[in-house]
Amino acid sequence: MSVHLPPPNPTELFPIAGVRIGVTEAGIRKAGRKDLSVVLLDDGASVAGVFTQNRFCAAPVQLCREHLALGEGIRAMLINTGNANAGTGEDGLIRALHTCQALADKLGVTKQQVLPFSTGVIMETLPIERIEAGLDAAIADAKADNWLRAAEAIMTTDTVPKAFGAQVMIDGVRVSITGISKGAGMIRPNMATMLGFMATDACVSRGLMKQLALELAEGSFNRVTVDGDTSTNDSFVVIATNQAAHAPITSLDSAAGQALKTAMLGVARQLAQAIVRDGEGATKFITIVVEGGKTSAECRQVAYAIAHSPLVKTAFFASDPNLGRILAAVGYAGIADLDQTGIDLYLNEVLVARKGGRNPDYREEDGQRVMQQAEITVRVSLGRGAAFDTVWTCDLSHDYVSINADYRS
Amino acid sequence: MSVHLPPPNPTELFPIAGVRIGVTEAGIRKAGRKDLSVVLLDDGASVAGVFTQNRFCAAPVQLCREHLALGEGIRAMLINTGNANAGTGEDGLIRALHTCQALADKLGVTKQQVLPFSTGVIMETLPIERIEAGLDAAIADAKADNWLRAAEAIMTTDTVPKAFGAQVMIDGVRVSITGISKGAGMIRPNMATMLGFMATDACVSRGLMKQLALELAEGSFNRVTVDGDTSTNDSFVVIATNQAAHAPITSLDSAAGQALKTAMLGVARQLAQAIVRDGEGATKFITIVVEGGKTSAECRQVAYAIAHSPLVKTAFFASDPNLGRILAAVGYAGIADLDQTGIDLYLNEVLVARKGGRNPDYREEDGQRVMQQAEITVRVSLGRGAAFDTVWTCDLSHDYVSINADYRS
Repeated sequence: MSVHLPPPNPTELFPIAGVRIGVTEAGIRKAGRKDLSVVLLDDGASVAGVFTQNRFCAAPVQLCREHLALGEGIRAMLINTGNANAGTGEDGLIRALHTCQALADKLGVTKQQVLPFSTGVIMETLPIERIEAGLDAAIADAKADNWLRAAEAIMTTDTVPKAFGAQVMIDGVRVSITGISKGAGMIRPNMATMLGFMATDACVSRGLMKQLALELAEGSFNRVTVDGDTSTNDSFVVIATNQAAHAPITSLDSAAGQALKTAMLGVARQLAQAIVRDGEGATKFITIVVEGGKTSAECRQVAYAIAHSPLVKTAFFASDPNLGRILAAVGYAGIADLDQTGIDLYLNEVLVARKGGRNPDYREEDGQRVMQQAEITVRVSLGRGAAFDTVWTCDLSHDYVSINADYRS
Repeated sequence: MSVHLPPPNPTELFPIAGVRIGVTEAGIRKAGRKDLSVVLLDDGASVAGVFTQNRFCAAPVQLCREHLALGEGIRAMLINTGNANAGTGEDGLIRALHTCQALADKLGVTKQQVLPFSTGVIMETLPIERIEAGLDAAIADAKADNWLRAAEAIMTTDTVPKAFGAQVMIDGVRVSITGISKGAGMIRPNMATMLGFMATDACVSRGLMKQLALELAEGSFNRVTVDGDTSTNDSFVVIATNQAAHAPITSLDSAAGQALKTAMLGVARQLAQAIVRDGEGATKFITIVVEGGKTSAECRQVAYAIAHSPLVKTAFFASDPNLGRILAAVGYAGIADLDQTGIDLYLNEVLVARKGGRNPDYREEDGQRVMQQAEITVRVSLGRGAAFDTVWTCDLSHDYVSINADYRS
C-alpha cells in the first residue's frame, strides 16, 4: 500500500526540450512488463549525478562515475529493472559496458557518452542479450512526453509510479522541470536514492551541475529512509538541456540560481517523499524533526536512530503511543554527552515528554489521537544548541515482512 | 516461538552459597504473575555490574551505578518486571530510591547496599506502593534453590525462562556458577543485556570484579542483537560470594582466574544466546562471523550491519537465499576503504561469493538447503587482515511485528 500517494498527474509532467524517452518490454526477469528505458539527450546538455556510498556499489554505478568524469558530454541513459547487476564482480562490469556500447553504436555516439542504470535482484548475471534485443524498440518509442511510462518502467516493488514536475520563471523565461524516481525497499540513500532522474530545459553551466546535484540530493533523497538498507545501486541524475532562452546560470547564489534550485528542490523532495509514501508495507508517513542540537549532523544522527528503530516503527504501525521507545532511540543514537534532562518530545502538537520525563499534563488519549493519523510529525528538542534537521520515514508493518520474504518468489 | 531453546534444567541450576532468592506476585502491571524478586546476599560478597550505554538510561540503572561506586558492600537486589522506570525523570529516581530504602529497612542494611532493577514499559510511573506491599512476601519466599523461579519472574515478552549453571574445579575445590537473564526485544546490548545476573561461590577479590564483569559481557551479551534497539535498562551483574574453600583469585590471568573466567564465560554465552534464541518472533538462530579484517572493531561493524539489515533478516525468515542482500549490508557498513573485490561470502560451508562476485560454482539449491535450517552461520572474509569477530542474531518475522505492535495491549 502507499500513504496518501495518488498516481502522478500526467499534465504536470512537462516535456523537457532536448530529452526524449523510450520504453519497451525486454523480458529481463519477467515477461509482459515494461522493464527497459532509454533516455536520449540532445547535444549540449549539462549532466551530473550522485551515487551510492555503498562499497559494494553496482557495476553500472561504477561506469556512471567513470563516464561522467570523462566529460565527453552524455547523450543517452540506459535503464533496466529486474536485475541490479550488483555483487557481480568483473563480469558485471564487462556486461554493463557491453550494453553501453550496443546503444552507442545505434545512436552514433561513444560508449562513454552512455550512462547505464540497473535495479532489481542483487548477485545475478545481467542478461545482456535480452537488453540488447530490446534497444531498437526502445529507441523507436522515444518521445518527449514519455516521462510517466518511464516512471512505470523503472518500478520494482513500487506500487505506484513516481513523477513530478514544476515550472519556474528565470529572467522572464518559463523553464520546466520534470523528475521520476523509484524505490520502496532497501532505502536509506547515502548521496542518492535507488533511482532518481530530473531534467530541466534551464541553462546551467556545466561546472555548476555537480554542486546542484549534491545540494538537491542533500535536501531530498539523502533525508529519507524506509529500512536503513543503503542500496548498491542508488543513482540520482540531474540534467539541464540548456535549451531555454535565458542567460546561463553560473552561480546557485544568484537570483536565477536560487529560483531554479528552489523549484528543483521542490520536485526532488516530492520524488524522495514519494519513495517513503510508497515504502514497502508503509501505512504511515512520519516526519522526524530534531532540533536544539549542537550540529545538524547530530540532529540527523538522532533522527535516523528513531527512523530505524524497529520498535518505534512497529508502534507507529499499531497506532500505539508507546512513546518511551522514541526516548530509548534518542538515548542510544550515539551522542556521548547527551543529557536526558534537557530533552522534550512532541507528537504533532502534543508535548509528550518534558526535560526527559513524562509531561505531567500528557494524557494517553492525546497521543493516541495523533498516532491514528496517516501522517505524523515527531519533534525532539535536544536542548543543547540551535541546529536542526529533518528525516522522513515510514512504519514497519506485516506487509514489509511479507514483501521481503516473498520478493524473489 | 524460540529457536532450539528448551526450558532450563533445574538440576543444573546450582544453589550458590551466600545467595537466597525470593519471588512474589505484586500485581505491578498485571495480576496473577510473578513480577517481583529479591536477591539476598550474605555479607562479604564481591559484586560488579555493567550497564547500558543508552543516554536515556533508566532511574534504577543510575542508582545501581551510584551504589556500586560507593562500595559499601551490596546486600540485596530488588527486581521488578512490568515497568522499566525509564524516561521518568527526577520522579523516577525518587521512586527507585524509595523502594531501595523500603527493602533496606526490612533487612537492616543501608539503601546504598541495595541495587534496584526494572524492566517493562518505558515512560510510565513506577507503582512503588505495590512493590513495597510485596516485599514481605518476597523476603519470606527467599531460599537458595529459587533461581528458576527468579528467571520466570523477570520475563517480559520472553517465551521461556533463561537460566544456566556450571561447576568448575579451582585449586581442587568445586565451585558453582549459576546465572539468569531475560530479554527478547529491544536487544542490542551495549555493555550488558536487558537483565542478566550471575553468581558464583568462588572467591574473587573485589578489585577484580569489574574487570571480570566487563570481560564476560564483552564475550557474550555485547555480541548479540535482536532488533538493534539498545535498551534503557540493560544491566548485567556478577556476584562472587567468596564462600568456597579456595585461596582468593587475585588475577584473571592466573590458572585459577582463567579456569573461573572460562567457566563463567560459558554460562554468560548461553544466557546471551538464549536471548537471541528467544528473540521476538525468531525462527532462525544466526551466527555471523566476519574475518580477514584489519581490526576486530571493523569486523564487528560489518557483522552488526548484516545482523541489523531488515532485508537480510526477512530473507532468513523466508529461507530465501537472496544473498546479495548480505553483500549490500557489507558494502554500507561504513568501512570507507573497503575493496569489494577482496570479499568472500560463505553460508555454512557453501562458498556463495568469491572476490566480490557470485562464485561460478555456486548453485542456488546449495544456498537453499542451508537457508532452510534453523541454525545458520554466515561467514564473511574481508580479505584485508587477520582480525575477526562474531555476533549472534535472529531473523525478522511476522511475529516480531505482531509482538511489538501489540506489546502494550
